[in-house]
Amino acid sequence: MRKIYVIGIGAGDPDHLTLQAAKAIGRTDVFFILDKGEVKESMIELRRRLMKAYGRPSRRIAEGRDPERDRTPADYEGTIADWRSRRSAVTEALISEHLLDDETGSFLVWGDPSLYDSTIAILDEILIRGQTLFEYEVIPGISSISALAAKHRIGLNRVGQPFEVTTGRRLAEGWPEGVDDVVVMLDAQRAFAAHPEAYIYWGAYVGTEDEILREGRVSEVADDISKTRAEARERHGWIMDTYLLRRDGSPDSE
Amino acid sequence: MRKIYVIGIGAGDPDHLTLQAAKAIGRTDVFFILDKGEVKESMIELRRRLMKAYGRPSRRIAEGRDPERDRTPADYEGTIADWRSRRSAVTEALISEHLLDDETGSFLVWGDPSLYDSTIAILDEILIRGQTLFEYEVIPGISSISALAAKHRIGLNRVGQPFEVTTGRRLAEGWPEGVDDVVVMLDAQRAFAAHPEAYIYWGAYVGTEDEILREGRVSEVADDISKTRAEARERHGWIMDTYLLRRDGSPDSE
Ligand SMILES: C[S@@+](CC[C@H](N)C(=O)[O-])C[C@H]1O[C@@H](n2cnc3c(N)ncnc32)[C@H](O)[C@@H]1O
Ligand SMILES: C[S@@+](CC[C@H](N)C(=O)[O-])C[C@H]1O[C@@H](n2cnc3c(N)ncnc32)[C@H](O)[C@@H]1O
Repeated sequence: MRKIYVIGIGAGDPDHLTLQAAKAIGRTDVFFILDKGEVKESMIELRRRLMKAYGRPSRRIAEGRDPERDRTPADYEGTIADWRSRRSAVTEALISEHLLDDETGSFLVWGDPSLYDSTIAILDEILIRGQTLFEYEVIPGISSISALAAKHRIGLNRVGQPFEVTTGRRLAEGWPEGVDDVVVMLDAQRAFAAHPEAYIYWGAYVGTEDEILREGRVSEVADDISKTRAEARERHGWIMDTYLLRRDGSPDSE
Repeated sequence: MRKIYVIGIGAGDPDHLTLQAAKAIGRTDVFFILDKGEVKESMIELRRRLMKAYGRPSRRIAEGRDPERDRTPADYEGTIADWRSRRSAVTEALISEHLLDDETGSFLVWGDPSLYDSTIAILDEILIRGQTLFEYEVIPGISSISALAAKHRIGLNRVGQPFEVTTGRRLAEGWPEGVDDVVVMLDAQRAFAAHPEAYIYWGAYVGTEDEILREGRVSEVADDISKTRAEARERHGWIMDTYLLRRDGSPDSE
C-alpha cells in the first residue's frame, strides 16, 4: 500500500516544525510540490530547507503545475470547487506516476492542514474516485493564528468567551454575529478598516525574517497598517497577513 | 533581566513539541509548575518527560500550589477573574523567590498558550502590578483543535466559510449565530446532544496513548459518546475532550 503524509510545517519559522513532522519528513520517499507559476519563493524555500535538514538523501521531488485560479470570481465557492477538481486531477496524476507501491509520499502544508487548506479535501476526492489507492495520515502544524497570537502575546478568546475564525471576504459583509473576537485570514481588502472602534492585532509574514507586527485601535492604526501592507506587498511581490479584532477596543484577554 | 518563556507543548503527544519549544526548554534554568491538588498525572508526566529529554541537567523545578477554584459558579467570569488574581499572586511569589537575575524560567503550557489558558494573562497582571520584573516570550504549540482535526483528517472550515471556537457552557445556550461549524472545548455537560442533526467529530485524550475518536451524526453516535466518555472519565479520574460540530450533518470540508 502507498502511504501519504499531509504534514503541517508551521507558518514560516523553520523551528515551528514539530518532532512528529520532522520524523515524517525523514520517512518520505517522494515529496509532492504543487505550486503556482507566480511562485512565492520564500514558501518554497522553507520547504526545501526542511527537506534538506530532515529528509533522506535518496528523497525525490515530484512537481506539478497548479491549475490557474480566478482570484476575483463572482461565484467564490463554485470557483473553488472547480479549481479543486482540476487540482485533484493534477495531484492524482502526480501520485500515480511518482509514488511506487509501498513508498511514502508527503505534502508539506503551510501552517496547519486543518485551516483554509485544500490538501485533505483533494486526497479525499481522489480516494472517492477510487482509481488511485493509498492510506494517508495528517500531522498537525503551528497555524498562522497560533503564531500571530504568540508574537502579540495574547489569548484568542476572552475568559469563557467564543471567538470566530473567518475570511476578509466574510468580514466585509459585516461583523460576525454573537462574537466579540474575530480572527481574519485571507484578507485582500483590508476589511478591518470598516471597524474603527475595534482593537487590532495584525501580523504579516509572521515567524519569518520579514515579520511585521502592529497593534492598536483600528481608528488609530488602520492607515499605518494599510501603508505598511502595500509597501511590503510591493517589495516582496506577495503578502500573507492575519489579524485578531477585539470588538470593544480593549486589549484584555483570557 | 529575568526572562520567562511561555511554551506551548502540544496537546498530549510528546512529538507535538516544536523545535523552537525544545530549544527554549534547553535554555531554561527554572521550570514553574502550578498544578491542582487532584493532579492530572499524565499531564504532569508529559511535562517531566519533556524536561528530561530536552532540559539541562542543572534545571530546577519550582512548584506552587494552584488556588482552589469553584467548578460550578453562578458568576463564571467573576469567579475566573478572582481565581486568576489569586493564581497570579502565587505565580509572582514563585518567580520572585526562585528565578534569579539573568536566569530563564519557563511555563510549559498544554496545547497552544493562546487557547483557553490563563498563563499570559497572569504574567501581564504581574507586570502591571510592577513589583516583579521580567521579559517574556510566547512559543506557540499544537492545540487540541489542530490535533483533533488531524486525527479525523478534516478541515475545520468549509470552503471560504467561518467557524467558531466556543465552550460547552456557551453551546448549551444554543447554536452560535452565523456559523455552521463549531469547535467546542471545555464541555463538561455534553452540550452536543441538543443538536441531533449535526455531524460530530469527537476526540478524547487526543494524541495520547488513551486517545478515543468517534464521528457520525449526533443522533446516531451521541449515546455511544456519552457512554464512552463516562467510562473513560471513571477509569482515568478525569477527561479532556474536544469536538467539531458541522450543522447540516454533512462531513464535507474545505
Ligand atoms: C490559504 S490560508 C492557509 C493557512 C494555513 N493553513 C495556516 O494554518 O496558517 C493562507 C492565509 O493564512 C494566513 N497566513 C499564513 N501564513 C501566515 C504568516 N506567516 N503570517 C501571517 N499570515 C499568514 C494569511 O491570512 C493567508 O492569507
Ligand atoms: C483549559 S483548555 C486548554 C486548551 C489548550 N490550551 C489547547 O490548546 O488545547 C482545556 C480543554 O482543551 C481541550 N483539550 C486539551 N487537550 C486535549 C486532548 N488531548 N484531547 C482532547 N481535548 C483536549 C479540552 O476541551 C479541554 O477541556
